[in-house]
Amino acid sequence: MCRSNQWFACKSNISPDDFFFAGLAKPGLTNNTFGATVTLATVQQIKGVNTLGVSMARVDYAPGGINPPHTHPRATEIVFVLEGELVVGFITTENKLFSKTIKKGEIFTFPRGLIHFQINNGKVPAAALAAFNSQLPGTQRVANALFASSPPVDDVVLSKSFQIGTQEVETIKSKFAPKK
Amino acid sequence: MCRSNQWFACKSNISPDDFFFAGLAKPGLTNNTFGATVTLATVQQIKGVNTLGVSMARVDYAPGGINPPHTHPRATEIVFVLEGELVVGFITTENKLFSKTIKKGEIFTFPRGLIHFQINNGKVPAAALAAFNSQLPGTQRVANALFASSPPVDDVVLSKSFQIGTQEVETIKSKFAPKK
Amino acid sequence: MCRSNQWFACKSNISPDDFFFAGLAKPGLTNNTFGATVTLATVQQIKGVNTLGVSMARVDYAPGGINPPHTHPRATEIVFVLEGELVVGFITTENKLFSKTIKKGEIFTFPRGLIHFQINNGKVPAAALAAFNSQLPGTQRVANALFASSPPVDDVVLSKSFQIGTQEVETIKSKFAPKK
Amino acid sequence: MCRSNQWFACKSNISPDDFFFAGLAKPGLTNNTFGATVTLATVQQIKGVNTLGVSMARVDYAPGGINPPHTHPRATEIVFVLEGELVVGFITTENKLFSKTIKKGEIFTFPRGLIHFQINNGKVPAAALAAFNSQLPGTQRVANALFASSPPVDDVVLSKSFQIGTQEVETIKSKFAPKK
Amino acid sequence: MCRSNQWFACKSNISPDDFFFAGLAKPGLTNNTFGATVTLATVQQIKGVNTLGVSMARVDYAPGGINPPHTHPRATEIVFVLEGELVVGFITTENKLFSKTIKKGEIFTFPRGLIHFQINNGKVPAAALAAFNSQLPGTQRVANALFASSPPVDDVVLSKSFQIGTQEVETIKSKFAPKK
Amino acid sequence: MCRSNQWFACKSNISPDDFFFAGLAKPGLTNNTFGATVTLATVQQIKGVNTLGVSMARVDYAPGGINPPHTHPRATEIVFVLEGELVVGFITTENKLFSKTIKKGEIFTFPRGLIHFQINNGKVPAAALAAFNSQLPGTQRVANALFASSPPVDDVVLSKSFQIGTQEVETIKSKFAPKK
Repeated sequence: MCRSNQWFACKSNISPDDFFFAGLAKPGLTNNTFGATVTLATVQQIKGVNTLGVSMARVDYAPGGINPPHTHPRATEIVFVLEGELVVGFITTENKLFSKTIKKGEIFTFPRGLIHFQINNGKVPAAALAAFNSQLPGTQRVANALFASSPPVDDVVLSKSFQIGTQEVETIKSKFAPKK
Repeated sequence: MCRSNQWFACKSNISPDDFFFAGLAKPGLTNNTFGATVTLATVQQIKGVNTLGVSMARVDYAPGGINPPHTHPRATEIVFVLEGELVVGFITTENKLFSKTIKKGEIFTFPRGLIHFQINNGKVPAAALAAFNSQLPGTQRVANALFASSPPVDDVVLSKSFQIGTQEVETIKSKFAPKK
Repeated sequence: MCRSNQWFACKSNISPDDFFFAGLAKPGLTNNTFGATVTLATVQQIKGVNTLGVSMARVDYAPGGINPPHTHPRATEIVFVLEGELVVGFITTENKLFSKTIKKGEIFTFPRGLIHFQINNGKVPAAALAAFNSQLPGTQRVANALFASSPPVDDVVLSKSFQIGTQEVETIKSKFAPKK
Repeated sequence: MCRSNQWFACKSNISPDDFFFAGLAKPGLTNNTFGATVTLATVQQIKGVNTLGVSMARVDYAPGGINPPHTHPRATEIVFVLEGELVVGFITTENKLFSKTIKKGEIFTFPRGLIHFQINNGKVPAAALAAFNSQLPGTQRVANALFASSPPVDDVVLSKSFQIGTQEVETIKSKFAPKK
Repeated sequence: MCRSNQWFACKSNISPDDFFFAGLAKPGLTNNTFGATVTLATVQQIKGVNTLGVSMARVDYAPGGINPPHTHPRATEIVFVLEGELVVGFITTENKLFSKTIKKGEIFTFPRGLIHFQINNGKVPAAALAAFNSQLPGTQRVANALFASSPPVDDVVLSKSFQIGTQEVETIKSKFAPKK
Repeated sequence: MCRSNQWFACKSNISPDDFFFAGLAKPGLTNNTFGATVTLATVQQIKGVNTLGVSMARVDYAPGGINPPHTHPRATEIVFVLEGELVVGFITTENKLFSKTIKKGEIFTFPRGLIHFQINNGKVPAAALAAFNSQLPGTQRVANALFASSPPVDDVVLSKSFQIGTQEVETIKSKFAPKK
């Protein structure tokens, strides 16, 4: 039984490779609905961060690509622009939008649990590196969660919440459904 | 300077009333867009919970009323039904919906940071008591955050995220705008 | 091996029932020594709260019933009156009593680790709902711990601590003993 | 404004003396009711431990002296015997007593928030050093809290809790009262 | 008084710029003793991360440049190679070295509090982005701390610790002294 | 599966001995290179502290003995002098030395993660008791970590870091090597 709160203090068969990950080196493909791809480097990819409370991700964006509004239920995020230029923003619990255009080498913070997004309004691809203070921050894309869950969220719930008709709810659901 | 991590250990002028709150005793009015009202008992209402990591809220629902999809960025929630019957649900980061109909005296859990909702599909009013493991859990209603923020989230962001036209984005925004 | 600090992020075979509990819906029996019964909704009853740091309990009180002085070694508590009226109180490390009579719908806070109690001085039954910021707060009733432990605390310890004779210690112990 | 979670990272006018305390070097007087005295080295005596989560105390015991049943609401304790011999014990939330006689140089642990005590059953003075994982653990002596609080706990509460008559409650209260 | 554990939940006069920092966009100068420069993006540069537990730094290395053995007393670090190639390593409390050569886009983890280093053995400049799970991780360069502190660490301490003569201690101190 | 964050809350087969340790009662041998020995009382020796966040250690020093510069990556330390007199010190991240001579019964604090040391400059043996706010604080002796790791740290890294020749690096390494 491991009795440390840091996993590797109890282990003898660990190696440098447990703390290493090469999977962020190459851009992810962006030929999808959102024109953007997230590549994760959490404890599921790099077991060395177990119990250490930190992880990373790389996001690649085609021109016009978007990492749509989402939350990380267990982490604050700092994003660093690797290439290109991004419009980034988060919304507070007071429904205030904090948004900014950031360029290569600049950073922006998304506080724990708040809805945020990035969009590449430029004409060239963009890329960003995200850092999280959790080894498994989790990601919940708002539109996907509500309109493409399994089982589906009841149309009445969505109709009342977004102040749209159930017909429009079904239309949005259909847009998400086949893409899954 | 207070050098405890519990505020009252440094205070001499405190009284029992600092730990007391009567504001949840009466039902909130439900004659609003969503047919539901949340009454908070956080550190802003009951200063005794400062540094103690716990708070409560009461939610009242008219028949058909909904506490629309929202997150608490800083807390897990347990909800207890005081009156009536509610359909409750949360969506995981894997886009799975966990939903249940709960009756008077029953409880359900919404894990930290995940989108969740309650709706009163019954024909009589309902009420629930929510407990949080944060003195100021924060609440972010998804639709309001995205379609009624100030300044507004760009139509293009919302159009791409929800797979709808910018005209439909404007329509939804207009539904939220006058209600503010 | 689960490498999240939230258990359900690693699980696939979970269901809504893991987050649900009906056991608080009915009043507990109060025909016992203290005229009060505590019904728990901790991680032992509702496994969904594992790693989520929150739990609940329901307390039912006959007229004159008491939830005698006790501590929760791992949690702060907020109590909400469901029915009737209660005198509640906690004692600080400065030996100050913070006490209040609270009625239906009112709440009161008991800070982490401090001795507290509730008594129903009314003529009708009372009930309360307690919320804790721990998934397993633990409960230690002071008199039971000291006068009914197994093995027993030495009479000399109790005699010196309560400034009573060992004969009186034995008398108190005998009151608790048969009730176990 | 200090923006570290370690106070001294923001300070320039600190000195080695902020991290030093000589107050535990001499035995405390033990000519009191309990035949024992606790000398604290918390953040109130040694400001250097602010935000660092650790503190100490020295306890001196006359022959027959007792550090009566008490809790530390915010800390686990390890006790190390400096001189003499002590009977130590704590009671779990299952009302099990874990007790042991410990001699000079031996250590024993009292888990966070649980009632514990030490008594010197020997014929010579004893002394112990206690370490806590909190900068201000707090101490609540059970009998003093219940029978000598200000304002007093109602006799009915104590009578029902300890299964004794209110006359006996008054007798115990009188023993504690003049000693304050 | 702010009663949230997230600073911005209490503030109204915040702006997007509080969460933004441009200072990592340009390489730092490397014409110094170690051929490397660290540029910080902690809470002292980007106040938005206050209470959010995350920060970043950029390190630039000339060919042959080294970020010499150091610790972060309050954080785990993940390092991502922006340009070039680095030999990185940390040493465990068992005195085992975990080392690896990492290239552009690859990441490596340095667990909380352990001594670690990076060296650019290549012929071209290198750069790395570091992420920390603390808003103010702190940095302690081992050799500087021991041989260039103010006041100085006694020669006898260093002589015994490094198993060298006090003459050699003085020589090393002299190397560090004028560079300050 | 244990679902408490305190291990013993889930266990039934525990005994008082799980919370007891006698191993610090006798002085450790000091006939070694540093003239000092550390005896640990962490979770590896006293399983009762598991999940409780506290531990102890005893250090014995021959005259002239030194507990050489080291860090505890996971804990703050308070040291209490049991016998004799010690020069103690820690170095901050600003390279400031905080040092003091402390005598029997006096205490000093070493903040989490910072390099610190104790040396017995007296003519008689000394002993100290250390308390930590971690059940497994870990210890990293700076010189041993850098000059006696396995595999070894590259000479070039050490040469550049300490501003000495690789020949001198090899000499220091040789001093540490045979002692292992």
